[in-house]
Amino acid sequence: MDPVFPIFPDPDDARLTRRVRGTDQAGAATEISVVEERPLTIYLNAQEIVTAMTIGDHPEYLALGFLRNQGMLRADDVITGIDYDDEIDTVVVRTQRRTLYEEKVRKKTRTSGCAVGTVFGDMMEGLEGLRLPEAELRTSWLYALAKQINTTPSLYLSAGAIHGTVLCEGDRPLIYMEDVGRHNAVDKIAGVMFRHSIPAQDKILYTTGRLTSEMVIKTALMGIPVLASRSGFTAWGVEIARDVGLTLIGRLRGKRFVCLAGEERLVRDADPDSVAEEPARARRKGAVDG
Amino acid sequence: MDPVFPIFPDPDDARLTRRVRGTDQAGAATEISVVEERPLTIYLNAQEIVTAMTIGDHPEYLALGFLRNQGMLRADDVITGIDYDDEIDTVVVRTQRRTLYEEKVRKKTRTSGCAVGTVFGDMMEGLEGLRLPEAELRTSWLYALAKQINTTPSLYLSAGAIHGTVLCEGDRPLIYMEDVGRHNAVDKIAGVMFRHSIPAQDKILYTTGRLTSEMVIKTALMGIPVLASRSGFTAWGVEIARDVGLTLIGRLRGKRFVCLAGEERLVRDADPDSVAEEPARARRKGAVDG
Repeated sequence: MDPVFPIFPDPDDARLTRRVRGTDQAGAATEISVVEERPLTIYLNAQEIVTAMTIGDHPEYLALGFLRNQGMLRADDVITGIDYDDEIDTVVVRTQRRTLYEEKVRKKTRTSGCAVGTVFGDMMEGLEGLRLPEAELRTSWLYALAKQINTTPSLYLSAGAIHGTVLCEGDRPLIYMEDVGRHNAVDKIAGVMFRHSIPAQDKILYTTGRLTSEMVIKTALMGIPVLASRSGFTAWGVEIARDVGLTLIGRLRGKRFVCLAGEERLVRDADPDSVAEEPARARRKGAVDG
Repeated sequence: MDPVFPIFPDPDDARLTRRVRGTDQAGAATEISVVEERPLTIYLNAQEIVTAMTIGDHPEYLALGFLRNQGMLRADDVITGIDYDDEIDTVVVRTQRRTLYEEKVRKKTRTSGCAVGTVFGDMMEGLEGLRLPEAELRTSWLYALAKQINTTPSLYLSAGAIHGTVLCEGDRPLIYMEDVGRHNAVDKIAGVMFRHSIPAQDKILYTTGRLTSEMVIKTALMGIPVLASRSGFTAWGVEIARDVGLTLIGRLRGKRFVCLAGEERLVRDADPDSVAEEPARARRKGAVDG
């Protein structure tokens, strides 16, 4: 196994949670373990790009993955440095050459003055003609992954109100990231993959969040051929998955799931009736959103 | 009551959902009602601002509320027109004078070339010295609101995987918006409030989503003194609420809730033990995130 694996959450990291006091419905004092959230301003070379809200672990991977997923870094960009300053909550990603994005900003500056609106168009453009590799997906892997992910110690289990995303290969979870926003969790995975040149074509992405168009587009642009979620999905997310040949699994809980795209690549090698229902503490409640 | 109230979801609107086919764990064909999601590009006068993903109801309110909540429209800006074009998924908000945001973009253009990173800083700046009005909150209102909101016909109940946010006054829900992202739902409410000059100081905002810093900041900047959620919260969200005098209620389900800020403004006039547990169909599951 690659020496970088596995990366799992560290719920014991004291920087990631805080005890918060409140009163309950009976007026009794109560103290709850709550996830932290801090701003992280991401720079690409001399260009300030965005301030993201994050739990604050893996700032370097978050910055790298965000820039890569937004198309601001190309696959062949050479990273010369990533400087994280935890006093001013800033990450600077440095590249050997002037990046594509800086050219775009320069161009945009001359026309409308702001690049905010271009990002979505760029993402959709990247999908044109994209066809993901035809990876098989065994239902035994799905069940094994869900069980391992739900029982791995995590901030979700200890504090709740957080999203998890996991990069998997076959029945093994490799990189399990959590964050206040599910896009951060995916971006951190993209950062690890970019930094360590981890191939995507044999991977499965699991997320606790909904399968919206943005999530499906991100997964497809990352080159990962399978996306599974314990949550629901949107109509457009399903449509895009079908267009690019992404195998899409929704509502994966206990023995249940729905295959929305890629049925022909699904190998049904597990008997659903042999799968145990989820233990109650693994059930993600409405407390989680994006 | 203001003639604009109430605004409730219209789950029967055929434009908002689609039947999607898939196969279940046993390989049986299944068809599921799923929320739509479409892009909406928002312009402020001649300036393209952003493309948001939305279910597509109330595009005018979404555009107006987004611009207002981002500080791109000031409270005294006069709207001369809102043009929605459903063929190209575009809304143009027109103002009498050049807006603050256009000045900012011009200024930023000369320095770093892009305004993406300024938005967060602007939002935090707006909080400085802010102190919300000392509105009382009765626990009987909380219970009455939760019950009504959970039983009002909604896309959540018919299709799931969607967020709801409700503007309330006392024990009455006034404006109930849903959207794929919880920020859109809040922005649509802000749009209605801005368009119809609805006062904020006597209102309560209820959301199905987590109480993150962004959600707390938005509510505070909208001038609403009470924010309640059925979900969890982050440490920074609680901290900001305490700083600005926002009454913050989390994990409101059945008889249970936690008051995290504003305990001294809470009037405990209801007996929690007289409150029924939620019916199963009203329980929002992990299927919902942002």
